[in-house]
Amino acid sequence: MGLLSDTLNAITPVDTARADAIQHRLDFKTKPQGSLGRLEELAKRVCLITGKDDPDVNRKAVFVFAGDHGVTDEGVSAFPKAVTAQMVLNFLRGGAGVNVLARHVGADVVVADIGVDHDFEPVEGLRIIKVAKGTANMAKGPAMTREDAVRAVEAGIGLAAEFAQRGYGLFATGDMGIGNTTPSSAIASVFTGVPVELVTGYGTGITDASFANKKSVIERAIKVNNPDPKDALDVLAKVGGLEIAGIAGVVLAGAAYKIPVVVDGFISTAGALVACELNPDAKGYIIAAHRSVEAGHLAMMNHIGQRPLLDLDMRLGEGTGACLAMGLVDAGVKILKEMATFGEAGVESEKIN
Amino acid sequence: MGLLSDTLNAITPVDTARADAIQHRLDFKTKPQGSLGRLEELAKRVCLITGKDDPDVNRKAVFVFAGDHGVTDEGVSAFPKAVTAQMVLNFLRGGAGVNVLARHVGADVVVADIGVDHDFEPVEGLRIIKVAKGTANMAKGPAMTREDAVRAVEAGIGLAAEFAQRGYGLFATGDMGIGNTTPSSAIASVFTGVPVELVTGYGTGITDASFANKKSVIERAIKVNNPDPKDALDVLAKVGGLEIAGIAGVVLAGAAYKIPVVVDGFISTAGALVACELNPDAKGYIIAAHRSVEAGHLAMMNHIGQRPLLDLDMRLGEGTGACLAMGLVDAGVKILKEMATFGEAGVESEKIN
Repeated sequence: MGLLSDTLNAITPVDTARADAIQHRLDFKTKPQGSLGRLEELAKRVCLITGKDDPDVNRKAVFVFAGDHGVTDEGVSAFPKAVTAQMVLNFLRGGAGVNVLARHVGADVVVADIGVDHDFEPVEGLRIIKVAKGTANMAKGPAMTREDAVRAVEAGIGLAAEFAQRGYGLFATGDMGIGNTTPSSAIASVFTGVPVELVTGYGTGITDASFANKKSVIERAIKVNNPDPKDALDVLAKVGGLEIAGIAGVVLAGAAYKIPVVVDGFISTAGALVACELNPDAKGYIIAAHRSVEAGHLAMMNHIGQRPLLDLDMRLGEGTGACLAMGLVDAGVKILKEMATFGEAGVESEKIN
Repeated sequence: MGLLSDTLNAITPVDTARADAIQHRLDFKTKPQGSLGRLEELAKRVCLITGKDDPDVNRKAVFVFAGDHGVTDEGVSAFPKAVTAQMVLNFLRGGAGVNVLARHVGADVVVADIGVDHDFEPVEGLRIIKVAKGTANMAKGPAMTREDAVRAVEAGIGLAAEFAQRGYGLFATGDMGIGNTTPSSAIASVFTGVPVELVTGYGTGITDASFANKKSVIERAIKVNNPDPKDALDVLAKVGGLEIAGIAGVVLAGAAYKIPVVVDGFISTAGALVACELNPDAKGYIIAAHRSVEAGHLAMMNHIGQRPLLDLDMRLGEGTGACLAMGLVDAGVKILKEMATFGEAGVESEKIN
């Protein structure tokens, strides 16, 4: 399998041997021990993930993979499929939510057409790594072939690897694909074993009638395809999506290159879950950005073993939540690098109680 | 009472008449309606608070008030009292947590000695608005006179008013005062009616024995002083603190000048609560930064009617949580100002279901 198998083989568990030493450094900073809570946790995790004492997360990239979904034929989304391509152009012009929030935290937006059902004119900034013009309708058969699933994961790995080699220190994932909460719920249900009913939400805001239809479409897709939860590529191919595969690739590349990957909400977490099923050691490289409003997000989070940083009632996707969380990761690293110690500041530390 | 009464009289309820119009603007942005959750709420609140359609929150100030507490004689803190003054110097050199996080979000740190038990040499950047060299031991009598309480609130108002007049668009509150969770718990208990037992925490990290002592000290302070919960200045004077008074002043000034005030954790919320008891219309100008680990924070939050933005297990104070939250406020405003509309981007909006 080439790049995918090489990448999976390159991933090692995060080495936690230095955890106490890093906490010790944090404990000398001018603050009560542990009082910066999860910022300290982030500082420590980034040090452990990168294997560095002074990690550099200044260069940040949020990878936004766009792909279409044949299952939109079943009426699972409130938006027409053409919006996927239209939003790609919006990303390239800088007008979407992810652009605003990426600028806010100093991150670069990397827009990738991995499976949009549209032929783009050459546009500056667009990375065309198209594997197919959208998936097939998973309610009637596999969303894609196993070969295409591998190609899409590898496309994500390849893109992220390029940015790793260019010195980026922090990755984030994002998605654009009308209909993509539907395969994400299917993935959540198949891997976690939680019934479709409990891992399916309203997506971008469908009606109650559409919601009932969406659940039955997902149940049908799982029944028709019978994906094997022990075979992550089988699940990805049968009930997944091309952008979800790309996201899985970024997570795997991050783990292989020892770069923290901030995973956005529901769709990104489905991609991260695929990555973790391919190699469970990838879990340690994931930073969960935020609690999505979407049902099913928590079930996947528990499976990955990460606790989201933010809970802001967001459900846009694109990597918007991940951008905000990258800002927190940055803040945590700065605490470690920029805060004075008690000794440097001439401040007495805690007295013996 | 001069400045205080003038300020209280200048405060009007936040005018919510434009709420629907602002939400309407947000609904035309290229995203499903409401999908940016609390960022949209922040954008809307800042517009309503400021009365502006394009509010400018670029210039941000976090006011860090430092004061000492006579009640430290009772052994309520894990740190020696001298640390208050030492940390003031740390703030001025830029090495404290609040400095790091303020730089991270582009805010200016305004350090004010409102009641430190130390005579500072003239130091660049230090605002000396000292009302007293710390409070008296509230376990034995009033923490301060009513006149000093008024002077301290007015000192906070005066400082914030200066920054309002200089064009700052976003305020945040912070505190430094060894022992100051003790008066904050007292304030929480008196105003909310929740027993001391339930609004007292471990502060900077005291032992179990010290914790039991701390609760009994707070109970004694309330019993000895018998503060009148209907008279906010009486409560502030008897069981409050000078930095808490300064924080109340910033909240009142923010409300009077129509500038949003991001309120940090436990101590800042005690100050905000005093402000809201002085004029309940101040509530609408407060943005609650984060859920503090301290017991009693939630009781005060409920009283103020605000829901914290962040929950990162932080308990440092100084304004550290407020800095992170200012970053989110900024992000919310940028969503409104920078995102493209469906029309501008040529993206189809929701189809009729």
